[in-house]
Amino acid sequence: MTRQPRFAAYPRRSPWLAGLALTVLAGPALAADRLKLILDDDVPMLHPAQLMALQSPRVDVLGITIVSGSTWRDENVAHALRMLEIIDRPEVPVVPGSAFPLVNTEKETERWESLFGKLVFKGPWMKQWVEDTVQTAPNYHAHDVVPDLPEGNPSLEASDEIAANFLIRKVREFPGEVTIIATGPLTNLALAQRLDPEFAATAKQLIYMGGSINPRQMRDSVSAAQFAREFINTPRLEFNFRWDPEAASITLRAPWKKITMIPVDPSTATELTPKLVERMSAAGTPLSKAFQDHLETGFPLWDEIATAVWLDPSIITKSSPLYVDVDTSFSAGYGQTLSWSEHYQPGLGEQLQTVVRAIDVERLENMMVELMNRPLQRGTSEQY
Amino acid sequence: MTRQPRFAAYPRRSPWLAGLALTVLAGPALAADRLKLILDDDVPMLHPAQLMALQSPRVDVLGITIVSGSTWRDENVAHALRMLEIIDRPEVPVVPGSAFPLVNTEKETERWESLFGKLVFKGPWMKQWVEDTVQTAPNYHAHDVVPDLPEGNPSLEASDEIAANFLIRKVREFPGEVTIIATGPLTNLALAQRLDPEFAATAKQLIYMGGSINPRQMRDSVSAAQFAREFINTPRLEFNFRWDPEAASITLRAPWKKITMIPVDPSTATELTPKLVERMSAAGTPLSKAFQDHLETGFPLWDEIATAVWLDPSIITKSSPLYVDVDTSFSAGYGQTLSWSEHYQPGLGEQLQTVVRAIDVERLENMMVELMNRPLQRGTSEQY
Repeated sequence: MTRQPRFAAYPRRSPWLAGLALTVLAGPALAADRLKLILDDDVPMLHPAQLMALQSPRVDVLGITIVSGSTWRDENVAHALRMLEIIDRPEVPVVPGSAFPLVNTEKETERWESLFGKLVFKGPWMKQWVEDTVQTAPNYHAHDVVPDLPEGNPSLEASDEIAANFLIRKVREFPGEVTIIATGPLTNLALAQRLDPEFAATAKQLIYMGGSINPRQMRDSVSAAQFAREFINTPRLEFNFRWDPEAASITLRAPWKKITMIPVDPSTATELTPKLVERMSAAGTPLSKAFQDHLETGFPLWDEIATAVWLDPSIITKSSPLYVDVDTSFSAGYGQTLSWSEHYQPGLGEQLQTVVRAIDVERLENMMVELMNRPLQRGTSEQY
Repeated sequence: MTRQPRFAAYPRRSPWLAGLALTVLAGPALAADRLKLILDDDVPMLHPAQLMALQSPRVDVLGITIVSGSTWRDENVAHALRMLEIIDRPEVPVVPGSAFPLVNTEKETERWESLFGKLVFKGPWMKQWVEDTVQTAPNYHAHDVVPDLPEGNPSLEASDEIAANFLIRKVREFPGEVTIIATGPLTNLALAQRLDPEFAATAKQLIYMGGSINPRQMRDSVSAAQFAREFINTPRLEFNFRWDPEAASITLRAPWKKITMIPVDPSTATELTPKLVERMSAAGTPLSKAFQDHLETGFPLWDEIATAVWLDPSIITKSSPLYVDVDTSFSAGYGQTLSWSEHYQPGLGEQLQTVVRAIDVERLENMMVELMNRPLQRGTSEQY
């Protein structure tokens, strides 16, 4: 059973929406006409997923809120600031959020592993890979240590607001207009929802990368085989949920107007290959140079899918309406994805979501190439 | 990574084993020369999986031990007795085992469903299907009620021994020689292991149908789509484990010499079709007649795969060595399959098993057709 999501930020099919898009594109590039977006992320490097939004002239990035995830918050903040420097977008606020998950801790995760088996990936708590991998070795360090960044350390400074407060403030400022694309653990959003019970319902929609339905390896590369280790024995386990299961459950039970889930599943058909990086860095901009020098290849395009299906939902080739929640019991299933078809759900607040199962990979890659090679979007800063 | 199991009850490939097989087949049909087997099952009907073993002249079925599962124990005992009557094998003992799981109960399962969502199948606790299905409607009744059997009620009587005791006695009588094929919940085997800690190690091997690794729908039939409901949102959930998770964990942590797992995965490529039943009932025996009149079609060949890979392991086309256990926490994952590749397992007693991932369906069907159409194996009764 498939269903296309009803939002259409990059409309192509509906004549009515196409007309609206023409109006938006033809009018003056006022902030009020553009699509309001907050990126909530744990990005540990120059991140094409964020850059796709930043590079789109139709998008008004209100801010980037940061959370710990694949790496610690402070390191992620530095990467985000440096990325904005490289593309000359100092007006976009980078807002630090939660350094730690709500309940989960490093020590508890180690005890959990002694009972239920070693995790393939556990973010900044990773000291070494269990098996050999082509990925960079983990750089284990304290949460408030920020190693020198390969792409250079930033001069820009982060906002002194707290991410959850920023999220609430911006959603209230533009009620019903703000899309949140969340591609890290959901700690910031859960805190925002508990600080303000109207938060989720006041946003336009949530699109998030997290969870896992029933993925399988689709590509025949070394990287694909190694990333498949994450789900081959745990088809319902995905890192963003596993880092902060309680936050994920709080966030997904909140009364959003619309939720789109990007689980691991569609990403197994994608990979950030050297060829794709080459295509993305053809324009000779400072961004092109940074990509060529610093982008680590081999990763599935987890988060890029989230930005892409927002910009153009017609790249979705298969989706399912499912109720989704997260296992918060301290058991073997801690952090695993729970999903139900209609009639089976327990009815404890879990929401019906559009779950993206597969996408058109060629169109995703073309969209990335097109956006990364656009002129840098300078000159919008005075609007903030 | 694949590995063929090393046992070879139906050897075809090794010249040495082929010679051995010739010796066995050419010599007198003494019980001592045949492969000793106990079938432990919850069979709720005439069961090709059991009949494959009963019809093989190379197999000495020491007994059929019965457990509750898809239907209640007493009903299953009646079906097994009637099956033995139809094929004139009154010498094979039918030994009643556990009517109830060790810990799980109907009321707790209902509370569990209110927290974690409705189960697609829960055996004799099923009052109605959640969605429409072509399967027979559930016949909800008390555990000690035996409805009239469609194939006729048996005159034969069950053994008055208890299944766990029978299992221990037979394994001790033929140390290192008895294979156990378990195709229902593992309650009887868990009790045998707790009654006698030497039980598992004294058997030759365990082959069982249970658990689920990462199945997906392989056939394009109505039945296949409906059975896929069982795993589409719960890839690690399978009924035999879910009925008695604690028994499954006890059994799988026991020190068997060898364990072969038949999870749901290979069964999704199989189906008991009307055509297959027609081919299996061509010989004009009383068994043929019973098949034609009473075999409900549409089911995956879950248990037949277990018997078949024992009789001829070369039908396995893909297998993996995995450590396997069962989630016994009363959480969303209760009864779900846990598995680990080497280096990830917690080391709490879970065993390295040969996990069958795929089989040659045509050869399975041909084996079933060949065995079901053989002359009934009368005249072996004096050997017991």
